[in-house]
Amino acid sequence: MEELQSAKNVRVKEWKKLLTKKGRDQSGKYMLEGAHLVEEALKTNEIVEIMVQHNFTAIKIEQLREFPVTLISAEISQSISATETPQGIFAVCKKRDVGLDLAIHRKLLLLDGVQDPGNIGTMIRTADAAGIDAVIFGEGTGDLYNPKVLRSAQGSHFHLKVVGGKLSEWIKQLKAADIPVYGSAIENGEPFINVPSSDSFALIVGNEGAGVDSAILRQTDKNLYIPLYGQSESLNVAVAAGILLYHLQKPI
Amino acid sequence: MEELQSAKNVRVKEWKKLLTKKGRDQSGKYMLEGAHLVEEALKTNEIVEIMVQHNFTAIKIEQLREFPVTLISAEISQSISATETPQGIFAVCKKRDVGLDLAIHRKLLLLDGVQDPGNIGTMIRTADAAGIDAVIFGEGTGDLYNPKVLRSAQGSHFHLKVVGGKLSEWIKQLKAADIPVYGSAIENGEPFINVPSSDSFALIVGNEGAGVDSAILRQTDKNLYIPLYGQSESLNVAVAAGILLYHLQKPI
Repeated sequence: MEELQSAKNVRVKEWKKLLTKKGRDQSGKYMLEGAHLVEEALKTNEIVEIMVQHNFTAIKIEQLREFPVTLISAEISQSISATETPQGIFAVCKKRDVGLDLAIHRKLLLLDGVQDPGNIGTMIRTADAAGIDAVIFGEGTGDLYNPKVLRSAQGSHFHLKVVGGKLSEWIKQLKAADIPVYGSAIENGEPFINVPSSDSFALIVGNEGAGVDSAILRQTDKNLYIPLYGQSESLNVAVAAGILLYHLQKPI
Repeated sequence: MEELQSAKNVRVKEWKKLLTKKGRDQSGKYMLEGAHLVEEALKTNEIVEIMVQHNFTAIKIEQLREFPVTLISAEISQSISATETPQGIFAVCKKRDVGLDLAIHRKLLLLDGVQDPGNIGTMIRTADAAGIDAVIFGEGTGDLYNPKVLRSAQGSHFHLKVVGGKLSEWIKQLKAADIPVYGSAIENGEPFINVPSSDSFALIVGNEGAGVDSAILRQTDKNLYIPLYGQSESLNVAVAAGILLYHLQKPI
């Protein structure tokens, strides 16, 4: 197999566009990198093509035979990577096609203006672990297909539904589907421990600095807080989401 | 007040040394940066000196009058900062003097080989929130005074005891003090929910990839796991610590 050498090649330019939200939105595709994420992608039918450096050995070329594979130079690997030291394997995938059905998907996490990609990805991973069915990206929340979000999510974005939209509209739909909606707030709410675990709930977490928007908090059924027993003023949003989701969810 | 201009000044060289572990170990001092952390430091008697850019206004110079303050140029601010865009305020502090008394400090978090500074700092912040008394940095765990650890901890390192040492030795002391010791593991343990909350416990969490060392896990009273209900293979260590600490701790 011939190796693509030059980072100025027109195909490389197309790949690099996938590092930007605009490029992803225009093409309907995104890029994953690293052995773990590509292995997760191999279990799906969402891969468009794979790019691999000739000296990358953690995944054997034979495993990739059903996909279009391009061998790439180290220079290209560097130029299409979102990391400083690329592992040398990449997959272009189709953006996910998600159908959310609130009759079936009844445990949800809603993100209101969460900005840090590491926090967003960690929450997708945590939601997956906690058996949550769907994550809704509300206004002002970062992009699911941002490379840092994908890296922190460690492949969990393949395991649950991720959709976008206006949270105020989603809350109306959740209520119509008889799913209790819980906001989270530092104060003016109930200690989370007072709310029982359930098969159906929607938890909303908010921006790292400002929390959940006050208009959203007025739309919820209840707002929950996590008591602070020490002198810390708040918890990291991904840690808070973990504590709340593991409390709320009832294993099936 | 005169402004220190040149980043080549000998004092600037001393400050820059505090960005390395070696420099901090040799001087017994460390550096904090940013308004929030400096404000937390102002509540202590641990500040050695403060450096501030002339155009920094979030904290008034009058508030700093009891400390030696040096006005610094933007160039110096950039050169002593661990961030890309420094806020323009720094404090040099004495490393903390910690006396740990297991008769009094009976809720503890032990870190075994935790490497990511963001995870370490987030766990200090979480431990503070959960009312934990002390965090023990075991073998292979990053340095408390690493700028990224301090940033993620958001000042919580001032609110609890942080000590180092060999975990196997600490576990002996914890047992002698009648404090139950819980390891955390992906498997081969009990679901955390089976263990009751308590006034006394020591929780050990481990390295991001390898988990808690198996020799350590053999020394514990029990090892706990957090059930994974989805397809995720693990939780982020800081999220896991949050779930376990909030479950184990009983508010006083």
